[in-house]
Amino acid sequence: MIVVMQGTATQENIQAVIEQMVELGFNVHRTSGAGQMILAGVGTPAAFDVAEFQVLPGVQTAYRISSPYKLAGRGFRPEGTVITFPNGVQVGGENVTIMAGPCSVESREQIRLSAQQVKAAGGQFLRGGAYKPRSSPYSFQGMGVDGLKLLREVGDETGLLVITEVMEISQIEVMLPYIDCFQVGARNMQNFNLLRELGHVRKPVLLKRGIAATIEEVLLSAEYILSGGNYDLMLCERGIRTFETATRNTMDISAIPVLKKLTHLPVLGDPSHGVGKREFVPAMALASVAAGADGLLMEMHPNPDKAMSDGAQSLYPEQLEKLVEQLRQLAPVVGRRVA
Amino acid sequence: MIVVMQGTATQENIQAVIEQMVELGFNVHRTSGAGQMILAGVGTPAAFDVAEFQVLPGVQTAYRISSPYKLAGRGFRPEGTVITFPNGVQVGGENVTIMAGPCSVESREQIRLSAQQVKAAGGQFLRGGAYKPRSSPYSFQGMGVDGLKLLREVGDETGLLVITEVMEISQIEVMLPYIDCFQVGARNMQNFNLLRELGHVRKPVLLKRGIAATIEEVLLSAEYILSGGNYDLMLCERGIRTFETATRNTMDISAIPVLKKLTHLPVLGDPSHGVGKREFVPAMALASVAAGADGLLMEMHPNPDKAMSDGAQSLYPEQLEKLVEQLRQLAPVVGRRVA
Amino acid sequence: MIVVMQGTATQENIQAVIEQMVELGFNVHRTSGAGQMILAGVGTPAAFDVAEFQVLPGVQTAYRISSPYKLAGRGFRPEGTVITFPNGVQVGGENVTIMAGPCSVESREQIRLSAQQVKAAGGQFLRGGAYKPRSSPYSFQGMGVDGLKLLREVGDETGLLVITEVMEISQIEVMLPYIDCFQVGARNMQNFNLLRELGHVRKPVLLKRGIAATIEEVLLSAEYILSGGNYDLMLCERGIRTFETATRNTMDISAIPVLKKLTHLPVLGDPSHGVGKREFVPAMALASVAAGADGLLMEMHPNPDKAMSDGAQSLYPEQLEKLVEQLRQLAPVVGRRVA
Amino acid sequence: MIVVMQGTATQENIQAVIEQMVELGFNVHRTSGAGQMILAGVGTPAAFDVAEFQVLPGVQTAYRISSPYKLAGRGFRPEGTVITFPNGVQVGGENVTIMAGPCSVESREQIRLSAQQVKAAGGQFLRGGAYKPRSSPYSFQGMGVDGLKLLREVGDETGLLVITEVMEISQIEVMLPYIDCFQVGARNMQNFNLLRELGHVRKPVLLKRGIAATIEEVLLSAEYILSGGNYDLMLCERGIRTFETATRNTMDISAIPVLKKLTHLPVLGDPSHGVGKREFVPAMALASVAAGADGLLMEMHPNPDKAMSDGAQSLYPEQLEKLVEQLRQLAPVVGRRVA
Repeated sequence: MIVVMQGTATQENIQAVIEQMVELGFNVHRTSGAGQMILAGVGTPAAFDVAEFQVLPGVQTAYRISSPYKLAGRGFRPEGTVITFPNGVQVGGENVTIMAGPCSVESREQIRLSAQQVKAAGGQFLRGGAYKPRSSPYSFQGMGVDGLKLLREVGDETGLLVITEVMEISQIEVMLPYIDCFQVGARNMQNFNLLRELGHVRKPVLLKRGIAATIEEVLLSAEYILSGGNYDLMLCERGIRTFETATRNTMDISAIPVLKKLTHLPVLGDPSHGVGKREFVPAMALASVAAGADGLLMEMHPNPDKAMSDGAQSLYPEQLEKLVEQLRQLAPVVGRRVA
Repeated sequence: MIVVMQGTATQENIQAVIEQMVELGFNVHRTSGAGQMILAGVGTPAAFDVAEFQVLPGVQTAYRISSPYKLAGRGFRPEGTVITFPNGVQVGGENVTIMAGPCSVESREQIRLSAQQVKAAGGQFLRGGAYKPRSSPYSFQGMGVDGLKLLREVGDETGLLVITEVMEISQIEVMLPYIDCFQVGARNMQNFNLLRELGHVRKPVLLKRGIAATIEEVLLSAEYILSGGNYDLMLCERGIRTFETATRNTMDISAIPVLKKLTHLPVLGDPSHGVGKREFVPAMALASVAAGADGLLMEMHPNPDKAMSDGAQSLYPEQLEKLVEQLRQLAPVVGRRVA
Repeated sequence: MIVVMQGTATQENIQAVIEQMVELGFNVHRTSGAGQMILAGVGTPAAFDVAEFQVLPGVQTAYRISSPYKLAGRGFRPEGTVITFPNGVQVGGENVTIMAGPCSVESREQIRLSAQQVKAAGGQFLRGGAYKPRSSPYSFQGMGVDGLKLLREVGDETGLLVITEVMEISQIEVMLPYIDCFQVGARNMQNFNLLRELGHVRKPVLLKRGIAATIEEVLLSAEYILSGGNYDLMLCERGIRTFETATRNTMDISAIPVLKKLTHLPVLGDPSHGVGKREFVPAMALASVAAGADGLLMEMHPNPDKAMSDGAQSLYPEQLEKLVEQLRQLAPVVGRRVA
Repeated sequence: MIVVMQGTATQENIQAVIEQMVELGFNVHRTSGAGQMILAGVGTPAAFDVAEFQVLPGVQTAYRISSPYKLAGRGFRPEGTVITFPNGVQVGGENVTIMAGPCSVESREQIRLSAQQVKAAGGQFLRGGAYKPRSSPYSFQGMGVDGLKLLREVGDETGLLVITEVMEISQIEVMLPYIDCFQVGARNMQNFNLLRELGHVRKPVLLKRGIAATIEEVLLSAEYILSGGNYDLMLCERGIRTFETATRNTMDISAIPVLKKLTHLPVLGDPSHGVGKREFVPAMALASVAAGADGLLMEMHPNPDKAMSDGAQSLYPEQLEKLVEQLRQLAPVVGRRVA
């Protein structure tokens, strides 16, 4: 930590700051000159709040210099994490993984047809919500455990892995028998109780970035899961909230290379939520992979115009097929391959 | 709902849109001229997604014209909601309610002293966290049920009502015997499972706006609680995330009068999280009440420099005392009074 | 400046950074321990870009610790700037100054009536645009020099000072004979050529914050004017752009106390642009003064429903009158007075 | 335009709204039912402000349904604009155009070397600032006309076209003899006087999106130039301001496909300003082209660590070379080609 004192700071102020730094476990070095006094704290205490120092009397500003996350940092596993699923499918490494399916499971017919179409297009995972976070209490809230059973059934039929959203601690146990990967939605990225529980589970997790979460906060949320002992974790950029209203969110494509630098965890892109309109999804999917994404999570529906949720951003099956074909050609340009 | 067709829309396109509107329960009227075709859907179907219409073939744009929330709307209770607590304290109406206390309960001494100071300053509620949502898994996570007991103990000693944060469904039952008001934090504003459960509880709830939540989304989240039958609900503006880094968040003071117009629920301000730095908290507290807030939720700590969390934004006891004095003078200017 | 090296930095990397710091005029001190190396640069070179250091090989991060502005800083004139106008009116100090008038000058009758109403309500300045920055080339662009003449004429009649917007260098000369204060609009806050010219003028300037400008950027833009020798400068918060669409902008009320701390310049609030809807303007005006504003710049129109621009956010004359009355009562609560 | 009346609107309110609509030239149709009254205004008046209607008594909300820009809209030239430069180089169509060079012209040696490196890498345009908009008055402000002469000299030597920024009306005349394309920077996107003048010039213009400009505002600013008669215009996405601080700006890649749909003008990406850190520029350049960009504007410097401005985001010459090679492979995947 570095603390810069104000020119008007008293010896008492300086002493008080040094004592607080020492108490946290820092080794403090003073530097001064040109009317400035800098206190450099060397060491890496587990947890402290730099904001507390910023308001101490006589302090001009203070900076944290050690990373607040440990296990999520690239340095923890420089070669990068590769997650291996029971059927041998791997996420990470050279792979560009395709996960697709409808927003919600609506019926056996709908989810079976979806699975067949995802498989035909070349996907490895079937997505589909059984529990749905909806802004309005009057909207369709998902089929629950019946949806989970249908996902498993058609996943097994087609050989697709199943990924679906968990919204609440009590759902974890219910979901375990049916799914291959938990998905934590953007709204729950800082539901710390849920994250902590997922750290104790032995199933992979995909953690989505919140719409107003900084990249550092994403990694701190990842730390909750990793520090529980669950290392099979991947992250997902799905758009942040900005002033622009032409798109549902603003997909922060730059978060992909930035995260790839900072963490060893695989990073996927979700262009469906990122942009929110079907016609722009393929462009954003291609952009995500061009920028280094390890995979894509996309909404596709056999009949988007009749979807019970998110139809506006769901691809038509034939769009998905064409897109995967383009991704296959694009991936090698950036040293990757679509399975 | 209103759907504006593109100039190039075919009769088939128009017909398909009309059918979908009728299916939802709308009565559809067509208007055309100057190369434009407008479909006006009259009626108020419970739930539909206007985005689905925006991407139908031939559609230029579509607007929802009925409000997506019902119980939260001002029209539901034009005179405004007043919440009466067991000790007779009321939130809403002419009252400007003062809620203050430390970020976290840290010890009996700390919370007892806090309560005495809040009482002395003229507050009606003691706040203090027993369960803490922390960005880092390595930060202090709260005292849990021991914290709840201490809150109740010192609340009873001083005659203050107790408000504290609930983070998770399983905590509701645990908290009920000890507290007077549940607080839902910004990070849980869209934890819909939690909101739904709080709709079935018979204790008041304070719901904070999420850092990236629109005002409409706040009201939809309120609708989750109200539609469960719990009408003792108040809202709280606590800062949104913007590009400005001089403050922790940007407190959206204008949300206060806007919410007061749109809803009958009491609206409080939380200047501590709103601005994040102690020195600016009084200015933002005064501004909140000047703008029409029904009360304030503020952090105060007997010794902020030693606080285990949020010390940087916690008022000194003497600051709180002076501030409440100023609020007492300011409130009548806008037709209100501090109890 | 402080540079934190990566744990993997080589001696060569460190040497290169030190050399570049020394070249800029810094005195460099090294601190190391716990695998960290910190280079503290003491000194205050006029201009350098800390981002350049952040990307040097072996550098983890770098911080600027001296303020990038000098003349705008509070330390330059700790007692605060008070601007005295030819008729004795002062902005700054204990005063809360009222500036009001229509968005645009539309006709002699309209601007004369406006001036009379502003005067009657207790204002000191008449605002009104002769040159208008309009998003669309097809919107009314202002009356130009004829508008300036009308402003002067009715300003003299009523004893009000005249403030109006300058959009372009060539307008400065034209405006000088007619106006008492230049206004730089949000869109021109970083029109550096214009700012530099206004530094050479001997008339006060009001500089509005841009909709996406940080507080530091506002002060750097102020520095352009101050460094030219024009010290009669005031700043104005008028709303920033956020994701919220319920209001035209989000008025960053906290910018007022933050700016008051960082700079000696008077800080006004513009609630009309801040919130964009007439009905919420009084609440935001009161909030601004409660938060410490030195004055208000507001739109008022004799007949807002027929205004040629910004009618939606213009107060009715009787609203202004009532509001100034409330401000008169509120100001003393925060140690101020409305003239 | 569509106006939705409140359920409580009086006949008088409705009449007043209709009159105002008719006055603007709308043909008004009424639709009512289920307690709602909708006024559909058919027609396309040149300019009106929908916000004015939103605050009329009895109005719930109002929508503009015709586009506020005309010449910039895709419908004006469905096949897309292709700009042909004197040397035959074309921007638009199938081409992915490469524009690169240093942030500022610093010396003959620096700009000559830059030009040679851009040419070698396969670029068509040399960029370089002679007039520099700098946040601080103490930063390097550019070489001015001497810089222009050097740009022309080395442009002619290498056969590269020259693009450089214009900040002020008086610079237009000065620049005309030396340059091939005017660049309007983000800070001047709403400098309407400058835009209007550029509409009268017979040289192509590249207009950058402001950091807080909506896509609609970009197109309205384009309209200023087009309506002056200058149709040789291209747009450029260069990052918007969001809460994320890991990157200098957040490059809104989705703006590229959205703009390509809405307008016939070529759309470029500027990944250097978009992300602000050299190491992430290639990823964002690839993403831009994958998303449909018609070209790239990038900073490259022979020796970025010694650059007088923006060194942190300037590519090394060898990075540019490698990137263009990748772009050559990627472009055909999306039906384009790098010249």
